[in-house]
Amino acid sequence: MTIETIAFTRGVPAEESFPIEEIIDCAEAALRRHGKTLLQYHPVRGFEPLRDWIARSEGVALDRIMVGNGSIQLFDLVARVLYEPGATALVERPTYDRSITTLRNAGYEVHGVELEPDGVALDAFERALEAHRPKLIYLIPDFQNPSGVTMSAEKRRRVVDLAARHGARIVIDVPYRPLRYWGEEVPCLSELAADDLIKLSSFSKLISPGMRVGWMSAPSEFIDRIACVAEDTYITPGMLPQGIVHEFLERGLLPEAIERLKALYAPRLKAILDALEEHMSDGVWIHPEGGFFLGLTLPDGVRSADVRRLAPEEALVLSNGEGFYADGDGSRFVRLPYCALTEAQLEDAVKRLARIVRRAAA
Amino acid sequence: MTIETIAFTRGVPAEESFPIEEIIDCAEAALRRHGKTLLQYHPVRGFEPLRDWIARSEGVALDRIMVGNGSIQLFDLVARVLYEPGATALVERPTYDRSITTLRNAGYEVHGVELEPDGVALDAFERALEAHRPKLIYLIPDFQNPSGVTMSAEKRRRVVDLAARHGARIVIDVPYRPLRYWGEEVPCLSELAADDLIKLSSFSKLISPGMRVGWMSAPSEFIDRIACVAEDTYITPGMLPQGIVHEFLERGLLPEAIERLKALYAPRLKAILDALEEHMSDGVWIHPEGGFFLGLTLPDGVRSADVRRLAPEEALVLSNGEGFYADGDGSRFVRLPYCALTEAQLEDAVKRLARIVRRAAA
Repeated sequence: MTIETIAFTRGVPAEESFPIEEIIDCAEAALRRHGKTLLQYHPVRGFEPLRDWIARSEGVALDRIMVGNGSIQLFDLVARVLYEPGATALVERPTYDRSITTLRNAGYEVHGVELEPDGVALDAFERALEAHRPKLIYLIPDFQNPSGVTMSAEKRRRVVDLAARHGARIVIDVPYRPLRYWGEEVPCLSELAADDLIKLSSFSKLISPGMRVGWMSAPSEFIDRIACVAEDTYITPGMLPQGIVHEFLERGLLPEAIERLKALYAPRLKAILDALEEHMSDGVWIHPEGGFFLGLTLPDGVRSADVRRLAPEEALVLSNGEGFYADGDGSRFVRLPYCALTEAQLEDAVKRLARIVRRAAA
Repeated sequence: MTIETIAFTRGVPAEESFPIEEIIDCAEAALRRHGKTLLQYHPVRGFEPLRDWIARSEGVALDRIMVGNGSIQLFDLVARVLYEPGATALVERPTYDRSITTLRNAGYEVHGVELEPDGVALDAFERALEAHRPKLIYLIPDFQNPSGVTMSAEKRRRVVDLAARHGARIVIDVPYRPLRYWGEEVPCLSELAADDLIKLSSFSKLISPGMRVGWMSAPSEFIDRIACVAEDTYITPGMLPQGIVHEFLERGLLPEAIERLKALYAPRLKAILDALEEHMSDGVWIHPEGGFFLGLTLPDGVRSADVRRLAPEEALVLSNGEGFYADGDGSRFVRLPYCALTEAQLEDAVKRLARIVRRAAA
């Protein structure tokens, strides 16, 4: 008898969540209504009705909004446009591994600031601002990737304050924010910070990642600079998915899509938390209130590299925890994305992980 | 009475050419058949059934094909991956302005090689190879942008030969190649060159540019390197348009789409050639046999900058001819894209242009 392999690797939506029928209808409607626009070359800032919808929903002017092929590509452009020789960037420790790569590829020296269960450690953050004088601070304040941490309201205010005092530009990445399963709403950093904050988000976690519709809100002069580089890079973003997303929003389908996702994912988060409680009592983990990820710190003396190496013995696949640490540490960190696994799979996967941890500790 | 403004600026397809109904049907079918794949994150090389279709059509192995968000973004990745400090690139003179920008942004010193009505001047090409030892040679051999020139079979053989002898990598950009309106087929450079040639093409000129489906054929080890950088830049290309294009191809709709485009564009090319003959006898122009563009050299003593400045007086909009020259010359060059204008508009536009030219000469 072979057992099913369970992959705890990528933070992808559950494929059963994709609203395929709605997308078919929206594609037809968008093409009938805007076909000649959506199929032609187009100004690089994106489909104006969609930009306008986002601007209204954010309460900002249209010229602060740009829509592109996923928010990571927009972050790549942001990082390159803000770069100056010798620039440094601060990130949370751990943070999304791809964002570290993006910053390094743009030339930044990247420094991680210790993450606590309620956000970055403020004293370490302040010391890092003084020591590294960062050009850019990259934060995932809501249901953070890879840890699941949400920054407290109090820390948000202090972070904004300290960044302003040190003249460092905050970039927030908030694709998970609408997916809160329980607990209390915390103000978005964009509501607290000065006008110059750059906000990245996307419809990847709410509708579909394969559509590649990400967006950015930033000062209009900054959007102008990004638009120049973007036009040189890809001329026109993928227009059809932008038309489909716009139609989806105009039909008012997003709130129910989010409710469906919460109904699907909340029990999964509950299941993995229960399973950890039952089988992994010697580990330490975050108790997320939303999003896709849960960060586990292995018991003292157990290394994530050993656990990852042993994982195939239990038909389990794990990510490299070290990639999430700008300094390459993270030797006891494991990221557990739970959204694309059923409750039964999660219970089973945590049991397997617990067995591997015991073996690695031995 | 106001007269209609005619824009001779961008090389865009005629919007009446977009197969909107077919695309609606293909979107529905692709989403029903492959929805869970097309809406999810996906390996960065693109939708495998589409890659496979292109590989078979090119007669190459699957692992030589990568599909991305338009060929210019693939060219940006190619340029960056091939770059080494101090690298130079050869291009035709004139060439596509955006490609010059892409090469320069990647760090290359760019040199133009004089273009004759049957392709690059071979002696100048050979001298440039010796003088600049280019890392990369970027060519648009078929119905070139911006001139409309097609390289002769004889020159193709010599160019491949000379490039190989000097160890320079050829990159060809061939989006217009299937749009030959008359004259004889010439072998593609990819049929003549060694395995290491990089071929870029797209469905932008055949189905729709707003779909952003471009592709590349290259040695598999090179595709591996590009895939790494692409994954760091955009994770996953826009998948839905790739699914739609695949469905369009599988249904056998491409040959008739190409026939429809030829039937639409050939009379337009004929119209602009006739109008030039009648109204612009003191200019010199290319007689293209396909594609989107016709390059006009203004009469002696008339500068394109003056013509462009005077153009609004005749409600005409022209591109900056100098952008197509790596050395910033092109002072008498005007690019005339004719596909998105009707025969009547083309006749009228050339008359207006002729009046401006006479005024600029005075």
